[in-house]
Amino acid sequence: MTTRIPDPVFTLTTGPVNCYPEVLQALGKPVLYDQDPAFLQTYERVNLKAQAAFASANVPVILQGEPVLALEAVGASALSKEDVVLNLASGVYGDGYRSWLEPHAREYLEIRVPFNEVIDPASVAAMLAARPEIAVVTVCHHDTPSGTINPVKEIGEIVASGKAIFVIDAVSSFGGMEIMPEDVKADIFVAGPNKCLGCPPGLSLLAVSDKGWAKMKRNPNAPRGSILSILDWEDAWKREKPFPFTPSVAEINALEAALDLYLAEGPGTVWARHALTARACRAGIKAMGLELWAASEDFASPTTTAIRLPEGIDETALRQTMREVYGVVISAGRGATFNRLVRIGHMGPTARPIYALIAVTALGSAIARMSGKPCDVGAGAAAVMAVIDSMT
Amino acid sequence: MTTRIPDPVFTLTTGPVNCYPEVLQALGKPVLYDQDPAFLQTYERVNLKAQAAFASANVPVILQGEPVLALEAVGASALSKEDVVLNLASGVYGDGYRSWLEPHAREYLEIRVPFNEVIDPASVAAMLAARPEIAVVTVCHHDTPSGTINPVKEIGEIVASGKAIFVIDAVSSFGGMEIMPEDVKADIFVAGPNKCLGCPPGLSLLAVSDKGWAKMKRNPNAPRGSILSILDWEDAWKREKPFPFTPSVAEINALEAALDLYLAEGPGTVWARHALTARACRAGIKAMGLELWAASEDFASPTTTAIRLPEGIDETALRQTMREVYGVVISAGRGATFNRLVRIGHMGPTARPIYALIAVTALGSAIARMSGKPCDVGAGAAAVMAVIDSMT
Amino acid sequence: MTTRIPDPVFTLTTGPVNCYPEVLQALGKPVLYDQDPAFLQTYERVNLKAQAAFASANVPVILQGEPVLALEAVGASALSKEDVVLNLASGVYGDGYRSWLEPHAREYLEIRVPFNEVIDPASVAAMLAARPEIAVVTVCHHDTPSGTINPVKEIGEIVASGKAIFVIDAVSSFGGMEIMPEDVKADIFVAGPNKCLGCPPGLSLLAVSDKGWAKMKRNPNAPRGSILSILDWEDAWKREKPFPFTPSVAEINALEAALDLYLAEGPGTVWARHALTARACRAGIKAMGLELWAASEDFASPTTTAIRLPEGIDETALRQTMREVYGVVISAGRGATFNRLVRIGHMGPTARPIYALIAVTALGSAIARMSGKPCDVGAGAAAVMAVIDSMT
Amino acid sequence: MTTRIPDPVFTLTTGPVNCYPEVLQALGKPVLYDQDPAFLQTYERVNLKAQAAFASANVPVILQGEPVLALEAVGASALSKEDVVLNLASGVYGDGYRSWLEPHAREYLEIRVPFNEVIDPASVAAMLAARPEIAVVTVCHHDTPSGTINPVKEIGEIVASGKAIFVIDAVSSFGGMEIMPEDVKADIFVAGPNKCLGCPPGLSLLAVSDKGWAKMKRNPNAPRGSILSILDWEDAWKREKPFPFTPSVAEINALEAALDLYLAEGPGTVWARHALTARACRAGIKAMGLELWAASEDFASPTTTAIRLPEGIDETALRQTMREVYGVVISAGRGATFNRLVRIGHMGPTARPIYALIAVTALGSAIARMSGKPCDVGAGAAAVMAVIDSMT
Repeated sequence: MTTRIPDPVFTLTTGPVNCYPEVLQALGKPVLYDQDPAFLQTYERVNLKAQAAFASANVPVILQGEPVLALEAVGASALSKEDVVLNLASGVYGDGYRSWLEPHAREYLEIRVPFNEVIDPASVAAMLAARPEIAVVTVCHHDTPSGTINPVKEIGEIVASGKAIFVIDAVSSFGGMEIMPEDVKADIFVAGPNKCLGCPPGLSLLAVSDKGWAKMKRNPNAPRGSILSILDWEDAWKREKPFPFTPSVAEINALEAALDLYLAEGPGTVWARHALTARACRAGIKAMGLELWAASEDFASPTTTAIRLPEGIDETALRQTMREVYGVVISAGRGATFNRLVRIGHMGPTARPIYALIAVTALGSAIARMSGKPCDVGAGAAAVMAVIDSMT
Repeated sequence: MTTRIPDPVFTLTTGPVNCYPEVLQALGKPVLYDQDPAFLQTYERVNLKAQAAFASANVPVILQGEPVLALEAVGASALSKEDVVLNLASGVYGDGYRSWLEPHAREYLEIRVPFNEVIDPASVAAMLAARPEIAVVTVCHHDTPSGTINPVKEIGEIVASGKAIFVIDAVSSFGGMEIMPEDVKADIFVAGPNKCLGCPPGLSLLAVSDKGWAKMKRNPNAPRGSILSILDWEDAWKREKPFPFTPSVAEINALEAALDLYLAEGPGTVWARHALTARACRAGIKAMGLELWAASEDFASPTTTAIRLPEGIDETALRQTMREVYGVVISAGRGATFNRLVRIGHMGPTARPIYALIAVTALGSAIARMSGKPCDVGAGAAAVMAVIDSMT
Repeated sequence: MTTRIPDPVFTLTTGPVNCYPEVLQALGKPVLYDQDPAFLQTYERVNLKAQAAFASANVPVILQGEPVLALEAVGASALSKEDVVLNLASGVYGDGYRSWLEPHAREYLEIRVPFNEVIDPASVAAMLAARPEIAVVTVCHHDTPSGTINPVKEIGEIVASGKAIFVIDAVSSFGGMEIMPEDVKADIFVAGPNKCLGCPPGLSLLAVSDKGWAKMKRNPNAPRGSILSILDWEDAWKREKPFPFTPSVAEINALEAALDLYLAEGPGTVWARHALTARACRAGIKAMGLELWAASEDFASPTTTAIRLPEGIDETALRQTMREVYGVVISAGRGATFNRLVRIGHMGPTARPIYALIAVTALGSAIARMSGKPCDVGAGAAAVMAVIDSMT
Repeated sequence: MTTRIPDPVFTLTTGPVNCYPEVLQALGKPVLYDQDPAFLQTYERVNLKAQAAFASANVPVILQGEPVLALEAVGASALSKEDVVLNLASGVYGDGYRSWLEPHAREYLEIRVPFNEVIDPASVAAMLAARPEIAVVTVCHHDTPSGTINPVKEIGEIVASGKAIFVIDAVSSFGGMEIMPEDVKADIFVAGPNKCLGCPPGLSLLAVSDKGWAKMKRNPNAPRGSILSILDWEDAWKREKPFPFTPSVAEINALEAALDLYLAEGPGTVWARHALTARACRAGIKAMGLELWAASEDFASPTTTAIRLPEGIDETALRQTMREVYGVVISAGRGATFNRLVRIGHMGPTARPIYALIAVTALGSAIARMSGKPCDVGAGAAAVMAVIDSMT
């Protein structure tokens, strides 16, 4: 029998994240038959709470799989073979969306910036002017592998002035900062409960505007009778309607607990503690002489802090040292950012400023230990605390 | 605020089922980062335990969605546009599989029997002899909406003597009776943790033979980089391999608890209590003068008892009465069996003979109440107990 | 390693009882420091909810141990060496209370009836008239080992007309029937969360009238600085007051969940389902030709049904058979009722009429199996269902 | 409705402590009837695991209340009116034990040292030589309100050479450092599951030597039939023996999980992480120019670090600041140490060195904030990390 690897002390990742205790308890509720009236009522109620969290006119859709399912389903459902799609790629996730767009479209267009930059709204305006037939514009709001935030509100204004629908991947920003589908004129807006809402992975949340529904409904290629169908679930939230297939009962119970917490604490309060944690974290990182990945702090994410790896430090070894010596787990880069940066998540239960202290100090200490060169961990810790002190 | 509908006292359905308490507790474990070494180890260990439960030479695949995902993925992955597929339809689920087979195949063939009968292996042999180019044979082992068990062992022998691969949907039978992929010569075998293993819905388990893997690998249309891909997950169980996307961490923890229970109790012991519960249930049903749906008890499922609705009884009203008056929830028919039968599940934690007493008595009492005609509930209860007494 | 004995399927005992799922989940809440402001607030809130459940003018006391602690503490706190105490003994528990009364009193008096009878209020009036110096009258409301209910309201009127304080052990009746401290003029009233409220054992609840507090305060022998002190806890519910010692944090969280359930469902609704379950149970028992222990159904408890053991049946063997063959656990007699009766609990989550079916049928079947003589289990089941049908 | 005070982020107290997740999950197990064979087996098994943890020849006793119950019960059970008792008081808890000793003894003797010192074994030898009739010697091993460790091994050798029994309160040290009853020649040894074992408060554990049992058995005043009886529970661990009263079922399940964790991780490993955490914490405290309470680090506890309050800082305000600004809860002083020190617990799940960083930094920052004078938080953090780095 292999020895079990012990759990870390702290999971400060960009998702899956530590869940709120109330969410873990809700997972343990009795699992009801999905057609039981009590569960049908629960499912409707959860959808209405998600609608409140979205501050949206339409009732959202819950898909029964983590957000990759939602993103793939959006590609398949929203794009028809007649469509020109414009994808805005400022990071690994935005870039990667191509694979779920291009096969469904007539033509795939892209605006692309370095992965530590963000999209310039003017470039979108220019492209839309040049190619007025663009039917769908897609963007990743928070490109998690870079920890950067695209200006979706400005882009949304531009897209909304035309006929294209606007698709936003807000998986790892929704719930951790001010971003709501109608504010940013999103037609399809994908959120991930397993990020800033503090749920386990297994579900996705979609807000769809009337324009978004209309686009999918007139798409002859939109999946039906498939795990990839969004249309099948349009009315599934209604108590009297059947589910296309069995929803993930335990995860729905967990989502309700997470939404209850979010609405009870108050979105503004939740966002503020995400922002403060990230700000304290960035201050600590800089005080230790380390470099943020984002080209400007103006668009550094309040839910993820990405730090450029110092010369000569191997990412895998660094994260392993942090875990083994200090018990702290943070996230790796992905794809093009792999071995170029590490990422500290500030999401849900870990979006509390004292966690920035842990992350900064463990990171600095591990780098010092590995490089043999000093890293002023004390300055990092002091800078974190100074931000907290100044803000509270 | 709407009044909350109270939970029922007993959920005796055919899935989602009541979970084992240990499974509910495991859902509440801390949610780790999916790339955390401790979770990677857990994921590998769970796969190896699933392999033990399958008594299989190959390590199984876990897909991150309830079994409809697996069944759709098998259709997309196993069938190429060159293939002739033979589907064996003895019930609503077997019949419905057509929609995930036909679009991927060159030609769709079917053997079809009334939905209270099962497939005759000789008919399969005849069809394979007539159409030797058949590349894939598919069957639903336990067609849950009918509560009937197809003779897959005999069919498997026949298919294995040719070149076709054999796909079995054992979603609602695996774990509740003796059915293991290699015993029945399955090449792709789909099991559902949310049935007889007593897990919540959200995952599926696949056993794939070498022949099955080869078929999918040489299929140019097999999905890759998609929620529908099985191939992407082939090696994902290995600790050192990345996941195609984030697995459902909490559900994996639950599955481990369920497999631990299954292996510790002993599959034979688990199957025996399913069989006894079903036998007691059928005895009770017959003693009250009600009629089983299955044309012969020889192929009535040990995990579901389907009962033909008496003349003049509305299914929805019947199930509602059972829930409201006695607190007992059972399953509806589906599709072609809707409003023609009701179904009592004997799955996982409810596969204990005393539950047959509850189901039989509540059903009989509700029918008497609704029809105004006597239904000998006492005889039903006595018959249930007599079977338990005679077997223990 | 010894093989683990599997859990039973149903625990239909008179306490400890199965807990409500919500209570089990609440036990898993994070355990806070007892002096943490959030826990101090919780403790106060739980006391206020208990006060609401008691419909009492005073805030109750929670003692940190199951009700035997409370009963012993009441003996030590309420009785001084000057006192004459009158104990009303209609069962094993009432009788046993002597051991915690006599050592603290000047004189111990008793009214005693056979353990299948209840106290006649007139006998109390006569005794109080004869011995006007009686300072304390004690009674067990529901003598669980007999399943009988004493007429405490009538007795309370009589006691209240004099100077004595009235102590009621309502451990296994409170929460399952209409019994509230001020209605029955109790001065000290002991309730047990681990009975009809559906909590685990580990706490007790006391309602104390002004007269009750005054009696304890003027008692020079009342314990202080001891686990047996009630006085130490008088103000401990107030957020700003320290605890005498660390309360059982997890059990307090569980109690809150139980009180929430009780108040939300509505005490009247809760009592009604206890009464219906007991009534259905008694009907089933009688229909099988078995005999109730209580001399009259008029005072048979709605929270426990005690059944006289048939000639020649050994209690231990009977309960063992019920558990092994049918998975059903019921309670044994205790002391003088041991091996003379068995008891079925209708408490909290099991106070739902369908449980009567299980208990009756399993009991009848086991007796038939052991005695070799027929026991009309069918008639028992039918009688249970007939009561349910007639009442709903 | 009053607003709920949010939970703190970190509870770094000296008890109640944060529980291990596995312990919280175990609390949610189904609650069985205490006489159920499965629970009787569990109770026996838990006692045998506790015996393994104690490395003791005798099976321990579990009392159904937090350790104040055990300590009071020991006073009542071990001391007779013939006895001279010697109590060794080096702190608030040792001192306070007088109230549970003196009333039961013929004569109460005391050796007393300042509350930041520990007992000199030579003084015990001298007292025993002077008063050879001393029958009982009592000591608090870890006087939690001071965070100091008495040299019980040396004292035990001295006591064991005479006839007196040796009683040790190891409530807040057992499980967090090398202290086992037979090693230190304890005759009665009280441990608290709610400290270093990471359980909720509600139980106590006693190891009793043959000499200890003999002393209690020949004591005519030893309680029987009382919550304060230890003798009643002597054989209660045996599966075939009845319980004196209902044990706290859920807490017993939790204790089993805690003992499983302790034995699986290995006591030596557990002690080492407690020691390292405390050492790192002390280094951080000193680096910030704060003063440890203990007169010498030689006897500073590995499970609690007590820090002298700087001039002019109010303890309550300090702890409140730490909680409100940083989310960190630590313990207050008690009695004579109240408002003179604060205490950081390193117990069970929080005995991991990274927690020292949090506690030190939050403490230093709060002091700086309140005093308006600088406190070198950076130096504190760096010192903590340096200790961790040097030891791992």
